[in-house]
Amino acid sequence: MINNGGNRVIAEIIAIGSELITGSTTNTNAQYLSRKLLELGIEVKYHTAIEDDFNLLMDVFNLALNRADLIITTGGLGPTEDDLTKEAISTALGLELKLDLNMKQHIQNIFCNTKRKMTENNLKQALKPAGAEFLENSIGTAPGIFIQQDKKKIILLPGPPREVRLMFENQVVPQLRSDYNILTRSVNLVGIGESQVETRLMELDLDPINTRFATFA
Amino acid sequence: MINNGGNRVIAEIIAIGSELITGSTTNTNAQYLSRKLLELGIEVKYHTAIEDDFNLLMDVFNLALNRADLIITTGGLGPTEDDLTKEAISTALGLELKLDLNMKQHIQNIFCNTKRKMTENNLKQALKPAGAEFLENSIGTAPGIFIQQDKKKIILLPGPPREVRLMFENQVVPQLRSDYNILTRSVNLVGIGESQVETRLMELDLDPINTRFATFA
Repeated sequence: MINNGGNRVIAEIIAIGSELITGSTTNTNAQYLSRKLLELGIEVKYHTAIEDDFNLLMDVFNLALNRADLIITTGGLGPTEDDLTKEAISTALGLELKLDLNMKQHIQNIFCNTKRKMTENNLKQALKPAGAEFLENSIGTAPGIFIQQDKKKIILLPGPPREVRLMFENQVVPQLRSDYNILTRSVNLVGIGESQVETRLMELDLDPINTRFATFA
Repeated sequence: MINNGGNRVIAEIIAIGSELITGSTTNTNAQYLSRKLLELGIEVKYHTAIEDDFNLLMDVFNLALNRADLIITTGGLGPTEDDLTKEAISTALGLELKLDLNMKQHIQNIFCNTKRKMTENNLKQALKPAGAEFLENSIGTAPGIFIQQDKKKIILLPGPPREVRLMFENQVVPQLRSDYNILTRSVNLVGIGESQVETRLMELDLDPINTRFATFA
């Protein structure tokens, strides 16, 4: 059972990467994020997937900013030239992309500690749209980004599913709970079907605006 | 190696169903269709997933008709009231949805042969946008739909992956090959890496407008 303080948040998940659009990989991130957002009472209305192409990204971001309150992207945060997620979202939002000195130091430390050679490209990962926050990535070099602009939230996560899960669970969920004032209550039931549970829940005197529920078999 | 007669076809895959958007299932249809279209030299540029909601469907179809030449949808062709794919695409295209008497008979025969009770709802599956063609579904009750309007092609397939694969392979591929004048040639190679193959292909004197190639590991 979920009380999210009367907010009806519409979410869109945008997966970025040519490996999705050519069918090399399945978009499991969209599934994972949808399920987790539903548990928070946040309705995902759109899944989109596109390749890393600046103009495509701009079109898709502008559309999403128009139809969703919460946008979560996966992919396109790597160090190479074809990783353009941050560049495109910054342009779409009119935010300057700036080098963050703390993040630069952090990335340099990772390379130093793991004795790998750092290239100039890797500094791309220390760029951050003005006013945004980094989301720490403890198992990869690409940090995530959290942007709040007016009432819109835009969260950029890397592509690898392991990194998505860890960062979403540890950093995004607490942030969304706090920002949207979400209280959740899980009830585990045995020996009763989903539809029966739904019927019984309907009978309860729940505040229809502020309370949402979802059943999972 | 692919020669598709100079057509640069932009495709969008739209997956329809609340089970996708709530994260109950993974969108494997988009992956399958993308890979198969790539083999035909057709570029998939967009994956979209939404639930069965008439207004959402209309928005997404209007957008897709604007940005893609070939639209393939999966899901929302069932007999229940929340299956609205045909209704929405017909409205978006300005086509009347009509009962097809041959299909009505066909559906009645399936129910009769399998000794199941047919409800009035099942007749929804005999509805077809004016001028469209049915695509036979030999393993389910929901037939697919093939619509050609101006230079746009819209193909509606059911949601179950087995049905998508069978109908796409047997009916959609031959239709697309013929309509887009696609010739393909597959070459299997052993003992040479993908990037080496690409380099060697670049050296060949291929018509850059009409010929496309893709390598699969």
